[in-house]
Amino acid sequence: MADVWDAYRDEIDGVEQQVRNNLDSSVTLVNTVAAHILSSGGKRVRPLLLLLSARACGYIGREHHQLGSLIEFIHTATLLHDDVVDEADIRRGRQTARKVWGNQISILVGDYLYSKAMAEVVEFRSQGINEVLAEACTKMAEGEVLQLYHNGNPSMPESDYVKIVEHKTAGLMAAACRMGAILAEASDDKQAALFRFGQYIGIAFQVADDTLDYNADGERLGKTLGQDLRQGKATLPLLHLLAHCGEQDRTMIKDRMETRTLTEGDLARILALMHDHGSLAYAMERAKTYIAAAKHELEAFEDSTARRALAVAADYMITRDR
Amino acid sequence: MADVWDAYRDEIDGVEQQVRNNLDSSVTLVNTVAAHILSSGGKRVRPLLLLLSARACGYIGREHHQLGSLIEFIHTATLLHDDVVDEADIRRGRQTARKVWGNQISILVGDYLYSKAMAEVVEFRSQGINEVLAEACTKMAEGEVLQLYHNGNPSMPESDYVKIVEHKTAGLMAAACRMGAILAEASDDKQAALFRFGQYIGIAFQVADDTLDYNADGERLGKTLGQDLRQGKATLPLLHLLAHCGEQDRTMIKDRMETRTLTEGDLARILALMHDHGSLAYAMERAKTYIAAAKHELEAFEDSTARRALAVAADYMITRDR
Repeated sequence: MADVWDAYRDEIDGVEQQVRNNLDSSVTLVNTVAAHILSSGGKRVRPLLLLLSARACGYIGREHHQLGSLIEFIHTATLLHDDVVDEADIRRGRQTARKVWGNQISILVGDYLYSKAMAEVVEFRSQGINEVLAEACTKMAEGEVLQLYHNGNPSMPESDYVKIVEHKTAGLMAAACRMGAILAEASDDKQAALFRFGQYIGIAFQVADDTLDYNADGERLGKTLGQDLRQGKATLPLLHLLAHCGEQDRTMIKDRMETRTLTEGDLARILALMHDHGSLAYAMERAKTYIAAAKHELEAFEDSTARRALAVAADYMITRDR
Repeated sequence: MADVWDAYRDEIDGVEQQVRNNLDSSVTLVNTVAAHILSSGGKRVRPLLLLLSARACGYIGREHHQLGSLIEFIHTATLLHDDVVDEADIRRGRQTARKVWGNQISILVGDYLYSKAMAEVVEFRSQGINEVLAEACTKMAEGEVLQLYHNGNPSMPESDYVKIVEHKTAGLMAAACRMGAILAEASDDKQAALFRFGQYIGIAFQVADDTLDYNADGERLGKTLGQDLRQGKATLPLLHLLAHCGEQDRTMIKDRMETRTLTEGDLARILALMHDHGSLAYAMERAKTYIAAAKHELEAFEDSTARRALAVAADYMITRDR
């Protein structure tokens, strides 16, 4: 994947330039807070997906710099709100905006970034882009609400888990891919294929993320082990475990989740159970299946550097060094 | 104003119907929370302004029902976030959504309503509507951030007060009026005139609201007297007083604002000072000047029931029984 980032470094720099250009609020504090999170080392995965999708459809223009920066604005808006909702203090190794400036500012600057992005996006005068982006944002909010609704609920159906992941994480990646195809004026079939590609890799990305949360080497992600469970979030490995472990363990896990009173001993027991029942392997297998489905969608496209880079990006989604 | 509401009752009912139709999320909790605040007795001022503006430009269609409901969605999204930012427990005599379901849900359902509105608005396929609405939302967020930035600051320049009011309150009313003109395919001049009309009445609305916060009869608004000062918000009557009272009183007021330690005795003293220095009269005079400027904009339009209703609506903005 490092080769892909290198090959498209100039393009990503173009996106960075637009990110800075768009931070032009007359309210200085808005720019300060937005810059804090926008310059905190995000990898610009969504702008890259937009670019590669456009190039794979033969696009040779440069509008993806601006459009990519706007997708990043929207992604950043969701991170600002997520950090308030999750009461997070650290993101990418730095203090979160809510920790530095408070929840109120984080909510409002999130609102600003989202509105600013929509205001700039409509300047593309593309009905397709307007629709796919606004739809993705609607789905993201719905996914977040559904996740919160199921918080502390160990009996959440797996179908709701997939719906949450598809909405909150995969939606914007799918939209980024489709918008690339729209920029390239690709056929409806190709637009739909790239949308599905983005959706599948997005689901895989989140499933892998949720699995790493239980993986003893997961510290590399900068997260504490078992963080999701501590927050009352049921994810795929845990749902698998709950469906396969004995009654006594199930009761213990449900209790810890509902009361959010996980001890180190509880966690060690749960990790051992996950190992015995193959819950992590099961979840990673599911993620790999989504990646395979995503790559299958690429067969509709002629071979090109961009298409190959998309395949590399797909594999990258479930690696640990993201 | 009661006559205006009566005359347009069917139209407002049409908006209500669309509000209900648009609450179609597959996540039930989203609809429940949104319905809680959407059915809490809001007067639908913005949809009415949209309708009257459209009619004053000769519009005879019915698209304003849907567009009006979407403006109300956006207004509701801002209320959900405002209540979190202001830590409000009561709105329109009912518990706020954040009090019933918590801050997290309120943030996310606000995000949903905003995104849903934009997703439906783009279906009008009107570049003018897309632009004016997204711009208004950007300004609203900037106004809220600026207000928060100046929280507890008694030295806020009056120009920033006007900017806050124009952005956070007047922007969406101005946008509603302009969108009415766009629906009617009115000339750019008429669109601009109605935009300014909405802007002026919106500023007047907020200035009057801020003034009533210091008015001894203000309880009718359902607010506690001096609430803004308690929250550290400098508004026009207070800025006037600070510019005209003696040094000792100024020091007292600044201290109470910065430390947010207002006693009943302090408040009584401040109200007496406002009376002596004519601060409330000054602020209401400013509001009236904006209403006069708004009505002046209506002169560009032929006489009609709708134009007369707009003039009535303008006066209504600074009355107490809003």
